[in-house]
Amino acid sequence: MKVEIECMSCIAHRGYQEIDEATKDVDLQFQAAKALLECLAKEFSPLAVAALLGTSRDRIIKKITGNSDIYAKKKRRSNKEAMKLIPAIMEEIRKEKSREGRFRKACLAAIVGNIIEFDIPGHEVDFAKMTLWLKDAERDLAIDHIPEIFKEVEDASTVLYLTDNAGEIAFDKLLVCELKKLGPRIIVAVKGGPILNDATLEDAQAVSMYKVADSIITTGADAVGLPLPEEQSEEFSRIYGKTDLVVAKGMGYAETLTEIELLQPHAFLLRTKCSPVARYFRVERGKNIAKLVRP
Amino acid sequence: MKVEIECMSCIAHRGYQEIDEATKDVDLQFQAAKALLECLAKEFSPLAVAALLGTSRDRIIKKITGNSDIYAKKKRRSNKEAMKLIPAIMEEIRKEKSREGRFRKACLAAIVGNIIEFDIPGHEVDFAKMTLWLKDAERDLAIDHIPEIFKEVEDASTVLYLTDNAGEIAFDKLLVCELKKLGPRIIVAVKGGPILNDATLEDAQAVSMYKVADSIITTGADAVGLPLPEEQSEEFSRIYGKTDLVVAKGMGYAETLTEIELLQPHAFLLRTKCSPVARYFRVERGKNIAKLVRP
Repeated sequence: MKVEIECMSCIAHRGYQEIDEATKDVDLQFQAAKALLECLAKEFSPLAVAALLGTSRDRIIKKITGNSDIYAKKKRRSNKEAMKLIPAIMEEIRKEKSREGRFRKACLAAIVGNIIEFDIPGHEVDFAKMTLWLKDAERDLAIDHIPEIFKEVEDASTVLYLTDNAGEIAFDKLLVCELKKLGPRIIVAVKGGPILNDATLEDAQAVSMYKVADSIITTGADAVGLPLPEEQSEEFSRIYGKTDLVVAKGMGYAETLTEIELLQPHAFLLRTKCSPVARYFRVERGKNIAKLVRP
Repeated sequence: MKVEIECMSCIAHRGYQEIDEATKDVDLQFQAAKALLECLAKEFSPLAVAALLGTSRDRIIKKITGNSDIYAKKKRRSNKEAMKLIPAIMEEIRKEKSREGRFRKACLAAIVGNIIEFDIPGHEVDFAKMTLWLKDAERDLAIDHIPEIFKEVEDASTVLYLTDNAGEIAFDKLLVCELKKLGPRIIVAVKGGPILNDATLEDAQAVSMYKVADSIITTGADAVGLPLPEEQSEEFSRIYGKTDLVVAKGMGYAETLTEIELLQPHAFLLRTKCSPVARYFRVERGKNIAKLVRP
């Protein structure tokens, strides 16, 4: 998925928010802004990928401001707020009589969890509204391949589950739990280092993901979405290459996985939090997507 | 007035909006975006002035997209909508019994007219709400030097009135009318060419400014706020140099006139439409300012 002209504004806006959060030293702030603008002046083109520009931006800001985990507080708070909602969502999932019904509800919850993201212009996170969004999850599902994804899971021996944000990972745990019940071995991947508000091992720990997943690995890099091949850990490359099905959460993975040749079915679960991503999937902004892409 | 780090995000956002309005040719859009980012990478520093960066941005976008008057439609619409409100505002001004009371009301109307500006993040123009903002104008007046400005006008032989936006210029006409009644000769200045949604001679014509002003001149340049000395028309430089009082409307003039040594009293009339400008004046965002600055 390539950038649109609108991405310039969003990348710069998030850059400002991150710089302002990372340090209050005005000299460092301007140094980081200048370096970010130089990077964008060089890299922003019709062939650029927003997730890769986002990775470059965050690495520049982290390096210059000396703040290596800008979203630390927001990630901790997201996990805490999300965990409060889990018992009620579990109850909703349990109400479903069939395995497929429970799987569907868990998919919807995992997609709604993807709303938890900060500093996107025009996108607000309001934890008090999560219950409402969950109630509207079916109505807002603009692409519904959940039945096809269910069948793929039933046939799979291994599923690699690529998580996106902190907080959201608490919702992911519920889906991982339902996936497990359908038979396959589930490997959950988090990011190799702090990037945006993406989940790392610390967040997987915070929501006790180890209690449901067969294995938890990292991508090997602090990169938005799929890291470039040379940045992936050997373990991640190996597992990604041989898994039967990939569940990819969020816009970062959608932006990067649509740039490579897929070797196995990928289930993209995300909320369209910005217009360029929404346009790519030919749906409106603020919709839920469960899209199965086969190689 | 220097930039804050937040200005990076706003300048880029407005750049995107202008590029998207200027052309639908994606190649030209990315060329313009790249040139804008290169300019910002070079110029964005703690010593930069947002209005000057805005001028550079708009010239780059106009040149590359070939659209020399990006806000043309919005300016026409602004004049039309503003003109509809004028009879009711005139009625309000006439209700005041004293000259000073009428002058005060006209100042407030001119400041509220400054709300008419587009593409500032978090600032919305809603013509339907103008009447409400006018009603709240006194309450929202965070700096009130109107009595001192009134006295300066009474003592002045000439007043140079620096207009800001189209639409707003219809409100300015009411204040120019009250200024005239206090005795001085009034010269109204508009921009020398299209820049943002700023008023040009066409807009002065659209609201029949010539019926109240003694003279209408241009700054000589398509620049945000005060043009650099070498860009000012000879006529503008001469009049600006020898006028007794300057009335300066809007953020662009506030940003640029605070960068030079003032030779005569300046009355700054504006709405704080962004946080950096609000912070400079030590007031909240979304407030009205009538500030007299003496040399």
